[in-house]
Amino acid sequence: MSIELTILGCHSATPRVNAYPTAQYLEINSRCFLIDCGEGTQRQMRKYKVGFSRINHIFISHLHGDHFFGLIGLISTFGILNREKDLHIYGPQGIREVINLQLKHSKSHVKFDLIFHELNSKTSELIFEDEKVEIRTVPLHHRIYTNGFFFKEKEKPRKLDMNAINEVQEIETCDYNNLKAGKDFVTNSNETIQNSLLTLDPEASLSYAFCSDTSYKPDIIEIIREANLLYHEATFLSDKEDLAKKTRHSTARQAASIAKKANVEKLIIGHYSSRYKDISLFKKEAEEIFNTVILAEAGKVISIK
Amino acid sequence: MSIELTILGCHSATPRVNAYPTAQYLEINSRCFLIDCGEGTQRQMRKYKVGFSRINHIFISHLHGDHFFGLIGLISTFGILNREKDLHIYGPQGIREVINLQLKHSKSHVKFDLIFHELNSKTSELIFEDEKVEIRTVPLHHRIYTNGFFFKEKEKPRKLDMNAINEVQEIETCDYNNLKAGKDFVTNSNETIQNSLLTLDPEASLSYAFCSDTSYKPDIIEIIREANLLYHEATFLSDKEDLAKKTRHSTARQAASIAKKANVEKLIIGHYSSRYKDISLFKKEAEEIFNTVILAEAGKVISIK
Repeated sequence: MSIELTILGCHSATPRVNAYPTAQYLEINSRCFLIDCGEGTQRQMRKYKVGFSRINHIFISHLHGDHFFGLIGLISTFGILNREKDLHIYGPQGIREVINLQLKHSKSHVKFDLIFHELNSKTSELIFEDEKVEIRTVPLHHRIYTNGFFFKEKEKPRKLDMNAINEVQEIETCDYNNLKAGKDFVTNSNETIQNSLLTLDPEASLSYAFCSDTSYKPDIIEIIREANLLYHEATFLSDKEDLAKKTRHSTARQAASIAKKANVEKLIIGHYSSRYKDISLFKKEAEEIFNTVILAEAGKVISIK
Repeated sequence: MSIELTILGCHSATPRVNAYPTAQYLEINSRCFLIDCGEGTQRQMRKYKVGFSRINHIFISHLHGDHFFGLIGLISTFGILNREKDLHIYGPQGIREVINLQLKHSKSHVKFDLIFHELNSKTSELIFEDEKVEIRTVPLHHRIYTNGFFFKEKEKPRKLDMNAINEVQEIETCDYNNLKAGKDFVTNSNETIQNSLLTLDPEASLSYAFCSDTSYKPDIIEIIREANLLYHEATFLSDKEDLAKKTRHSTARQAASIAKKANVEKLIIGHYSSRYKDISLFKKEAEEIFNTVILAEAGKVISIK
């Protein structure tokens, strides 16, 4: 199984000619999710070939424009494209009112059900679950109510060790599911064979943590621990740590510090302030703390298998 | 004096990679106006070097997304840029509620006054006037309440005919304003010299009519008659006249027919449906009816002097 993350936009504040605000497209275990939706996201989806019909669940971290103003346009486009499938929107309380008011005034009667999951909890909660993936909020600390999101594959079945299994003639195909589920095998002579002798450890469950926007908040570490991939905003460099604190954002160093303490595999940083012309400085600063740092850039695809 | 119109976006419905929805920037007699504001307009303003601080009045034809969804982002950006000047928004009733709700939920406290002029009249009305320019609505016929806008320089003062004036020794500099205003001159011997013998006709007052979106609506002709420049939507070609009627849009032929009957100088068409890959067909069709047809294209600047 795999994670594939496509960066659609990764800059802070106002959209510019070649600097789009936050939006990401995530595929995890064949599930497709859109995370944040700044102005111009639908244009970026077209540019980077993200099929509109694959999106059934959209996660909005907070209601600042650079994470949210593209949502009404995308929903409206779904309507124009005659979408019929349900669309689930997860975001802060108020999101339903804003979207519905705009649909009302434009007299846009979409054919699909728009299902809002409004969030207001200050502690992490499970907001999505199916047989393969679960998603929890990561409460962040910003100027308005904000959540990150932690996407995780569920624990996978154990793998059959066919060499070992073939040694035990009594095991039949109909027993395989029990073995995959971790059960021991009991022979006709009432002998118990431990599961670990017949199966191998399952593939690791992959996970992705999205954390934007937030000031440095170490208590997220327990929620995102051991993530394979962490996106953490880095609006400023350490030269503006005071400004980061004041505006409830993070520096590249702080993002890296979270990554290190949470023992994640790879860190992606983004949400760069427009004051920095050379974004490679963000990578340089983060790498002083943490080894594997990836700079978010529109169109970049980050895969984990 | 002059009119300079910059097309920022000119396509209908959903934004695409290189097809932005309706937005225009108009300079008339040194006044600057933004007309419509689809998603991505602020990006297009940056691309085509339209200074944000020059915009004090924004005119929104109707509340469909492709004419309106970029407005909240632009207002929000004005806030981030620390704008302090008043911003006037002219648009259909409801626009205030939509914008204010979004500002509330994003906790964006802009420092400038946002002054809404909500429109609901079904007949043409004067909505802006200063010493040089006046702007009237052009009620259109679309699926929701929609106005076009007619921008017109006010009548200018008559020009002094200095050769004639110098022949009359009694005329002094302080009399010039009366002459420019059209008054006759009375000599000391109580002889009246007709104004037309001392002045020349003023420069013509230039005008621009913006008409989008609308079905074919001949009763706008009296409002926009003799405009120097007319933008009239042409979403379809005549092969889809039925669809135009159904969706309350116009064909290129219908736009040209309005231009011809209103005896305008030049016609600009735009708001092309994405079904047409070759937009030159719109020009071809319109030119069967009307001579001077300009295709709207992002970045195109149309000047009249």
